[in-house]
Order: sequence, then structure tokens, then C-alpha cells
Amino acid sequence: MSDTGVTVKKNEDFSEWYTQVVLKSGFADYAPVKGCMIFRENSYSIWEKIQELFNQKIKATGHRNVYFPLFIPESLLKKESEHFEGFMPEVAWVTQGGDSQLEEKLAIRPTSETVMYATFAKWIRSWRDLPIKLNQWCSVVRWETKATKLFLRTREFLWQEGHTVHATKQEADREAKEILDAYKDVMETYLAIPVLVGTKTELEKFAGALYTLTLEAMMPDGKALQMGTSHQLGQNFSRVFNIKFLDENEKERQAWQTSWGFSTRVIGALIMVHGDDKGLVLPPKVAPTQVVIVPIPYKGVDADLIAAKTRELLEKLQKNGISTVLDDRAEYTPGWKFNEWELKGVPVRIEIGPRDMKQKQIVLVRRDTSQKSAVKEEQTVDAVVKALEEIQNKLFDKAKRFLEDNVTTVKTYDEFKNTLRNKGGFIKASWCSKTECEEKIKEETGATIRLIPFEKEKTFARCLYCGQEPKEVVYFARSY
Amino acid sequence: MSDTGVTVKKNEDFSEWYTQVVLKSGFADYAPVKGCMIFRENSYSIWEKIQELFNQKIKATGHRNVYFPLFIPESLLKKESEHFEGFMPEVAWVTQGGDSQLEEKLAIRPTSETVMYATFAKWIRSWRDLPIKLNQWCSVVRWETKATKLFLRTREFLWQEGHTVHATKQEADREAKEILDAYKDVMETYLAIPVLVGTKTELEKFAGALYTLTLEAMMPDGKALQMGTSHQLGQNFSRVFNIKFLDENEKERQAWQTSWGFSTRVIGALIMVHGDDKGLVLPPKVAPTQVVIVPIPYKGVDADLIAAKTRELLEKLQKNGISTVLDDRAEYTPGWKFNEWELKGVPVRIEIGPRDMKQKQIVLVRRDTSQKSAVKEEQTVDAVVKALEEIQNKLFDKAKRFLEDNVTTVKTYDEFKNTLRNKGGFIKASWCSKTECEEKIKEETGATIRLIPFEKEKTFARCLYCGQEPKEVVYFARSY
Repeated sequence: MSDTGVTVKKNEDFSEWYTQVVLKSGFADYAPVKGCMIFRENSYSIWEKIQELFNQKIKATGHRNVYFPLFIPESLLKKESEHFEGFMPEVAWVTQGGDSQLEEKLAIRPTSETVMYATFAKWIRSWRDLPIKLNQWCSVVRWETKATKLFLRTREFLWQEGHTVHATKQEADREAKEILDAYKDVMETYLAIPVLVGTKTELEKFAGALYTLTLEAMMPDGKALQMGTSHQLGQNFSRVFNIKFLDENEKERQAWQTSWGFSTRVIGALIMVHGDDKGLVLPPKVAPTQVVIVPIPYKGVDADLIAAKTRELLEKLQKNGISTVLDDRAEYTPGWKFNEWELKGVPVRIEIGPRDMKQKQIVLVRRDTSQKSAVKEEQTVDAVVKALEEIQNKLFDKAKRFLEDNVTTVKTYDEFKNTLRNKGGFIKASWCSKTECEEKIKEETGATIRLIPFEKEKTFARCLYCGQEPKEVVYFARSY
Repeated sequence: MSDTGVTVKKNEDFSEWYTQVVLKSGFADYAPVKGCMIFRENSYSIWEKIQELFNQKIKATGHRNVYFPLFIPESLLKKESEHFEGFMPEVAWVTQGGDSQLEEKLAIRPTSETVMYATFAKWIRSWRDLPIKLNQWCSVVRWETKATKLFLRTREFLWQEGHTVHATKQEADREAKEILDAYKDVMETYLAIPVLVGTKTELEKFAGALYTLTLEAMMPDGKALQMGTSHQLGQNFSRVFNIKFLDENEKERQAWQTSWGFSTRVIGALIMVHGDDKGLVLPPKVAPTQVVIVPIPYKGVDADLIAAKTRELLEKLQKNGISTVLDDRAEYTPGWKFNEWELKGVPVRIEIGPRDMKQKQIVLVRRDTSQKSAVKEEQTVDAVVKALEEIQNKLFDKAKRFLEDNVTTVKTYDEFKNTLRNKGGFIKASWCSKTECEEKIKEETGATIRLIPFEKEKTFARCLYCGQEPKEVVYFARSY
């Protein structure tokens, strides 16, 4: 359905490149309603794959999926004021049902803490009812006023939100960390996107959380993208929503909670990190189509023989669990097809022409390197499996090298500003731990502290802003 | 989490029985927002299973899942007036984003024809772009004003909606029928709910459709429940939304369309059809937990031995792909546990006590019949597999018999009204095919024509209302 290929280069006009890749590959589209988007077959298929992977992980650790309502009464949303304030400017309100004005307006959920926790309070009586470990896949709405960016900033997006209740702080700590590890595996092993992990500062943490754990990836334009967060909520919400339980000794105690989420933004990261001038490059483990077979017809050679061979190969690959498409459309040239499947990011292309038929071989072309190799026909499945593995690893390694090359250590604020201006990326610096310095830096440069690494690094200079005693090493960046 | 069991009998106060079963089994709950519900773990798990089954079917026939936005601008929704009129009184409107009034109010989707078809028109240029075969799983909102009934009538519910575009009428006809067959298999083979299939009358069809195919099940209170519908939309929407394509001869042609859906209502049907005085009875193929193991401790006997044995059995069943739970909670008596798991509808219970240990056996109890049998320990897996199969078949057979027993053939309107009053169920009658008669009957009795069967039956009397020449045999019923 794409009329032509991408007309700008990734490193020349990154933003325009991104939009063209998404639209022309048929990966997603704008919707008839402002600020919203359509997840078309191929991007939604990746989301389904991510759901499947993450569901496996969380179900194995005793979580269950549920569905809570889309609507939250204003009074309930307002209950946790700290939390509410942050979402207030971004809430879409339903005020009318049929022809009647509603007595109380209803928020479309920006997130479900309030509606879930009011219910948890009702469900929990004693320690026997704990832990509660629930998750839901749904869409959420945040009324963005800035321009839409497909997958990255839309008024409605898809996500999962996990919400758990525990008897002790230790259990909630463990839960928050366990989920972060599961996220990391999904991002790195499947999406091939390396991440830095750590803790958010007080300023950057989720409103109402005790602390927030985060995963941060680096985009080609030097901006960080938050791939997911996992919050230890402490007892903040449980006090507001009155979530208490009787312990084994019939003593009333306050519950501990976590919440965690990641969204379809990660698909935006996938496009940015791996894509190239020809279009999408999809990691084989999540690619909806892993292999495309293109027959190369030639005058004077029996086209039926090639057709039979390609169909045989299609079946063989599918039987081996490799998601394969045969593009035998008569109305397009092989060259046109190559471009289209490259634009769509299919990891491996197989070509079969008259010469290949004669020599009992196929030609295998890798999407990531454009490398071509002739493979003996009977070794096709093995060669494809190997190529898919190599592409998956190569994409991750390349992104990992990029991430590492884009961590710059600075000692002074001047160095910091220079790096931001000339290179971007993560900037590692020593910091005094005071929110004032953090706020000033944000105000003056737009960069925020993305994370405090789990493994404390030794400070190597005075605080980059105030020059006082440093407390810790943190990672700054501008971000999406 | 249930304090006590169900306190009314199914055949004494069906409505109260239903609500108690749903709430006390922890299957679902009311939400903090009026008219909405919470799909808790066990009911949502059945929905996930249904999704998995139906996805397999439609993906095998070339359909793909997508996600279109929740919001539909008023102007777009109004575009298809016939369609719009039906939904108008039930639409929830977003009028405010953050602190600002929206210029145009946005409907929360009651269904997605309009937003999808406006987009299809943009995507389709030529025959090469056809067919389009898309489906989405999402929540929809219809602003019901009647009292909420969990799963059956709530302001928000979950469903799938499929939307396809084809080059010819024949293709669209085939698609609508193919989907109906897939629905029938999900309902009958997995949910164990037998259905009658057929066509809706002009009065009862989906607004804007050429014709509507339907599946109708019979509930224990004698009312029919529509389990899903599949619409051949003809060219009605394609004309309004200007969905055209160039055929192989470069001639512009109007496209043909279908849409089809079923919702979480089917879970309501599942509860009503199979449940009994003790609570839920879940068909094994969709039960989140298929087997529960309850150890029966006894004074003076080594509890550790029983504990080890039950854990061994748990592992063995799980390894064989049987979803099993071991209930070894020390704080509850076996009797208490029996009641709880029966309430939750788990198909098979296994008990192991000191006597069973001695005799190297287990006791297997069927949820549907309460039948107990001693099984040699080494034959447990086989016995469980067999019991699960039998329960699945038995539930279907029982429901099928009930359905058949509740089809009454009548010749006169008096017989018709008597049957409705005394028995309910489906009423088979000869009809003149005129909408006037159909409307009068609905007005006077509340019964509607549920379907015209696919296999035309021979008329056996004059039209039951007007006494004129009969045209066809149809099935009436009161319905949910």
C-alpha cells in the first residue's frame, strides 16, 4: 500500500524519516480523530507478541490479568491529591450520556490506581487475601496538547498496568524489582533494545510512590526514552484508600503496594533504534513476518517450476515455525517487491530465479546488512534459522555499542552543556542530591536525571551545578 | 474471599441466584462507577481463553488484529444516519479535555464502523488492496439506563469486532457465513452452549446491514440470549464512506463489506446455562482451574506424607497440561474448601486422605454430578483427562437437551401467548413475513423473532398473527 519509499535519510531529518517510515510501511496511521492513531496489522502484531511474552513471565510468578472500567468518577480520582494533580491537566472528561448531562463527570482513565485501590480495600480483609497481583492490558487517555508523534505522543495509547498489594515492605520491594527484570528481558532479548536501569530521583519519581525504578534507552537523536517504570508505592495509596488487613495475630496493618507499566511507546523506540534509510528493520523475534520469498521469473524459463519450488519452500519454512510469506503477485516486479519488504522491515528475503533453480540453491538476503549469500536448497531452513539468530544478536549488539558510545562523563557544568549541545546522549555526572540543582539544570538545559544507577558509582567531581560535596553519580539526558 | 455460599436456589429466584453466584464466587464485581463492572481474574481468564481460540481461527483464515481509536468525532458518527440513529441515545460524550471545552464533542465508540470505514476509504485504491480482513478486541460503551446486570447489561463491555472489505458480494456472503461457523464452534465446542443459527428479520437486523446472521442460545428462565451476530453490510456503508476500488480493468467499483462481533455477554450465558445451586459450573475447556487437590489431614496420621503426595500429584497433572491448584491452606477445613471450589466451578476435585494413602488411591469428585470415585493412584492422570472430557460433553448434552425441550411449535396466537406465559423458550410458528405482524406481536407480548432458520422449514399453519398466507417458519422468544 506504500506508493514510494522513504525520501529522507535517517541522519539528515530524523523526525521526517520517522514519520515517513511509519506511514509508508503501513505500520500505523493517523486516525480521523485529532491526536489519536491507528495501530495497523504489523505494529499491533508486535504488541500482541509483547503481550504474549510478558503474560508468560507474569503468570509464571503468580500474576493474573483482569479488566477494570474505563471510567473513573471525578471524586474518586481526586482522592489522592498528589497523584491527581499530575494528571489533572491531561484528563478527558465524559459529561454527557445520551442526551443527559451526568451528575458527576467521569474521567477516562489516565491510569487505574484510584479505581483499583478503592476496590482492593473492599476485597481485602486479612493476610489470607494477600498478596494481590493483578495486571491489565488496556488503552489509557492523556489529553496531550502538543503535536502528535505516532507511538510516542498520542492522546490514547495502549499499555499494561500492574497493581499489587503485599503484607510487607520487603515483598513490595522484591516485586518492584522482579518486574523491572522482566521488563529488561522483554526490551533487550526480544526488542533488541539495550537499556540502563536504575532509580528515579525524588523529583522524577511517580507522584505518590516511595520510589520508582526505570529502564532508559537511547535514541539515535541523542534523546533518552523511558521504556517502562516500576513503582514501589509504599503505604501512600493504601492510607488514602484505606487498604488494611488483619495479620496472623488479628492485628490490623496497613498494606504495601506496587504499580508498574510500559506502553506502545516501546514500539516507537523499536522503529527509531533499528530502522535505516530503506525503512523499518524488525528484530526477528518480534517480526510478524520473518521471511519473504520472492520468485524471480525470467523469459524462456518455465515459471511453473519456480512457482512450485517457492511454494514447497514456503511450506517447509512454515512447518519449522518460521513466519514466512510468499510474494508471488504477478503484477509487480521483483525490484518493486524488494523495496516494499525492505520498507516493512522483514528480516530475511529469499530469492529464487532460473539460475538458482539450475544450481539447486536459493539466495538469502539479510535486511540488516543487505548481505547476500547463495545457500544450497536443502540447507535453507538451517541457514534461515541461523540468519534470524544472527540478525537478532547483531541488532542488539549494534544498539548496545551505540548506547555505550553515547554515555559521556563530565566534571563541570560547561562540559555538560557542551556535550548536550554537540552530542546529546546520556551524561554521567556527580551530583549533590539536592532537588534545587536538579531543577535548575532542567530549567536551563532541558535535561533531566534519567536515573541513579543500581550499582552506585564512585563520585569523581564536585556537584556539576553547585560545586558542593557530591553524593552520587547520576545519568542525565534530554528525553522523549 | 466469599464469606458464605449461595443462599437461593437457581429455580426459585433465578435473578438473585445469578448475582450471588457471580459476586460470591469472586468471578466479577461492581465497579466504583455506576453501571460498570470489574472482570476479575477468573472471568477475565475465560475471556483470554476465548480470545486465544477465536484468534487462532480468524488468523488461520487471513484476518489480522488491529487497534482503532476509542474516540469518534460527532460529525463522523453522524455520517451514516441509519446506523447512527440506533446508537444515539446510548452514546457517552467527551466534551472536555483538561480544562478546555472541546470544539467538537467526541463519542466513546459504541462500535467502530464509522471510524474504520472512513479510514478504509483512504487505504483502498485498487483490487490489489482487497480483501481487507481486520478484527479488534476492545471495550465499547453504551450508556444503558436500565439497572446493571453483570456481564449482560453494563455501560462498558468487552468484545471483538471484525470488519472486512471485499470486491464482490459473493465473497462478503462467504465471509459472513464463515465467521458465523467460527462463532458456533467457540460457543458449542468450548463454552458448551448449544445455539440455533439463522438470519434476522428486516426489523431485527443491524441498522445498515443487507442481512444479519445470528446465534441464539436459550437461558434457564426461558429467555433467548444472542451470542453473536455477523452482518453482510452490502454496499450501504461503502457508499456513505466512499469505499471504491479500481478493478483489473481499471473500472471503478463499489466495495462490499461485513462486520461481526460477540461480547463478554457470552460469559453471562455460560454462568446461567451451566451453574447450579452450589455456584458456577465451568466447562473444562475454558475453566481457568480444571482440578483442585484438597489434602484431608487426620489426627495421628503423618500429615507430611499426605503433603508430599499431593505435591507430587500437582506436578504430575501440571506436567500433563492440566491446570491444577493444590489447596493446602492450613487455616481452612476440607469441607470449607470443598464449598469454595464448588462455588468457583472447578470441574474436578481430588481428595487424598489417610485411607487413600494406605490404599494407594485418590478420590475424584466431579463438579457437575457430584459423583465420587476412587481411582488407583497411578491412573490419576488418565482418570482426570477422561473426567474432564466427560464433563465437557455432559454439560453440552444437558444444555442441548434443555434447548430442544424448549422449542415449542404453535399454530395460533393463543397457543403462542400461552406458551410464552407458561413456559417461555423458543416458539416456532408460521409467519406471513410482514413487519406489521412482527411489530404487533412484539408490542403485545414482548417476544421478537430471534431468527429465520437457515434450513427453511415447511410452513404448517396460517400466519400466527394475521391469519394470512404464511411465508416462512420462524423462531420467536423473549430475550435478554
